[in-house]
Amino acid sequence: MFKAEIKSDTLKGIVYIVSTLVDEVKFTIHPDSLSLKAIDPAHVAMLDITVSKDAFENYSADETEIGLDLDKVKSVLKLAGPGDSIILEHDPDQGRLTFRIGNITRRMSLVDTSSMNDPKVPQIELATDVKVKIDHLKKGISAAESISDHISLEADPEGFELACEGDTDLASLRLPASDLEGLKSEGKVSSLYPLDYFSNIVKVIPAGTVVDIQLDNDYPVKILFALAEGKADVVYFLAPRIESD
Amino acid sequence: MFKAEIKSDTLKGIVYIVSTLVDEVKFTIHPDSLSLKAIDPAHVAMLDITVSKDAFENYSADETEIGLDLDKVKSVLKLAGPGDSIILEHDPDQGRLTFRIGNITRRMSLVDTSSMNDPKVPQIELATDVKVKIDHLKKGISAAESISDHISLEADPEGFELACEGDTDLASLRLPASDLEGLKSEGKVSSLYPLDYFSNIVKVIPAGTVVDIQLDNDYPVKILFALAEGKADVVYFLAPRIESD
Amino acid sequence: MFKAEIKSDTLKGIVYIVSTLVDEVKFTIHPDSLSLKAIDPAHVAMLDITVSKDAFENYSADETEIGLDLDKVKSVLKLAGPGDSIILEHDPDQGRLTFRIGNITRRMSLVDTSSMNDPKVPQIELATDVKVKIDHLKKGISAAESISDHISLEADPEGFELACEGDTDLASLRLPASDLEGLKSEGKVSSLYPLDYFSNIVKVIPAGTVVDIQLDNDYPVKILFALAEGKADVVYFLAPRIESD
Repeated sequence: MFKAEIKSDTLKGIVYIVSTLVDEVKFTIHPDSLSLKAIDPAHVAMLDITVSKDAFENYSADETEIGLDLDKVKSVLKLAGPGDSIILEHDPDQGRLTFRIGNITRRMSLVDTSSMNDPKVPQIELATDVKVKIDHLKKGISAAESISDHISLEADPEGFELACEGDTDLASLRLPASDLEGLKSEGKVSSLYPLDYFSNIVKVIPAGTVVDIQLDNDYPVKILFALAEGKADVVYFLAPRIESD
Repeated sequence: MFKAEIKSDTLKGIVYIVSTLVDEVKFTIHPDSLSLKAIDPAHVAMLDITVSKDAFENYSADETEIGLDLDKVKSVLKLAGPGDSIILEHDPDQGRLTFRIGNITRRMSLVDTSSMNDPKVPQIELATDVKVKIDHLKKGISAAESISDHISLEADPEGFELACEGDTDLASLRLPASDLEGLKSEGKVSSLYPLDYFSNIVKVIPAGTVVDIQLDNDYPVKILFALAEGKADVVYFLAPRIESD
Repeated sequence: MFKAEIKSDTLKGIVYIVSTLVDEVKFTIHPDSLSLKAIDPAHVAMLDITVSKDAFENYSADETEIGLDLDKVKSVLKLAGPGDSIILEHDPDQGRLTFRIGNITRRMSLVDTSSMNDPKVPQIELATDVKVKIDHLKKGISAAESISDHISLEADPEGFELACEGDTDLASLRLPASDLEGLKSEGKVSSLYPLDYFSNIVKVIPAGTVVDIQLDNDYPVKILFALAEGKADVVYFLAPRIESD
């Protein structure tokens, strides 16, 4: 049994982030929360999202799993205005999820989840921690486009820098500590990441969000942020590219 | 002889509706009105439009016919702002129509009308009558997209419903009588129509328009509405798709 | 040595105009101004632009030349908001130009200028002189689209006209002297120009600009206008098409 009501904005925020990595996803429903883990087909990036029942207007659920085609879900979300509520109701016998938005009913067949295994979330401790407004990252991404396929994230006790360097061209955004929301760094760290993955996730994080970037030399970067006024937690991992000399 | 002046918005409204069905059209000019009948190449939908001379700022005409290429007319209409007047003048000797918008002159060759026969408008009486704001229909169309090629229109004494049902998915918009501008129904009726045709006409009807939908089981639907503050009448017929079981 | 600071709007205005003709350009830097001459590959149109040091917020330069890839420059300009300042700094040893916009740094390799010769600017005196708001020209261009590949510019003591005439269709914009900002004409002159070139330059000239059009029968048209509140002067030449009868 799963029946819930959620503001369209909250559901849009979650769905747009997941759809940067996968086309289909398995939501794991618990009595007090909803969670999902997703990994892209190339195993470069991973998402681990937990949405508290408090992020919903109403929520009643037993343990269950729901597989969804995200393109279909996005087409339904387009029908909802910013303040609209969406009522979700799972019919486990028919393998369907019904969305209700005002006087619109949209019934959707579910995706088989039997072959969808939860990826193992890496347990890593990263000493460097940068808290930065997403708007800065979006600006840095814009500057980096078409210079290289990779972006370097660098931090030292004085600040944080995004840089993209090609054979002849360079773009960088340097944020001194005073432009950051927080900075914990014991020395200089720097790693290269694939620009397209980094760009895709940065572009869907809502303006104004403060993101927590944890990094270390040649380690995956861990990006944490909240949606739905803190009632949904997102953790995003992105594998580094090891520079060969 | 035909010389007339019309607000660009009025002419745009008419032209955009006709161009959902045909690329070229014959306007029949009368001393007191202008009319046109159009049927799409597949003979699935038909339009019957009458524009009173009162819809024009100025109007003086003898009986005549004018064949127009609607893509050319649309490119001219783009030159006119919302409040602009367009002066039309027919030169029958040269086979040309001249559009004047402010200090712009656009002279256009006419299309030969000798092979354009007026389609015969069906004389059908349909007992069920729904009056509904076009904005509701636009919302129902958005929900239906990509689920099926057909949309069912259903009415009963309690309300009106648009529904689109595929093998596994369903989208429906249910409007109770209280959300309608009028409802006359003696029992349940339901018919299937091609979604693309229905969508095309719904999308070009101006927001806020109340449309009068007359329907019956497996009959063509008849959609009536007014443009130009009631001075232009549009009747649109759309053939049903008979469900085979 | 070249180091300068300029408002992004001023630099955008210049770059968008030059990029209608060429992909790469040589800026010639003088102590008191910056200039460039560009001719399109087909040798149909030419630009001669002079930007006074007063158009810059700061400017210090020795004589030098800088070759730039305009697509790269346009991608940098997208990073700057309307009121932003852009700091330019030339590193002649490395063959690089650095753009700084706030905390963004964009270093760009330069294009080799050794094969870029300055085109010879034609010294022609054209008796007819029309001063007209660019907004009128934009409207005339819109009307002319898809009727013919050429546009005629005509002037006589009573006014100025843009006309585009195909085999059966015609579009024209007639501006009486009262709609012009100035008119010097001793008789009727008329010439045909390629519509795409004329359209490209007209579209990038900022709204509100008064342009000075000098023309004569079957001569190149010379279009002069100012950017940056008169601190940058642009001269554009466009070759006529001689009508064969």
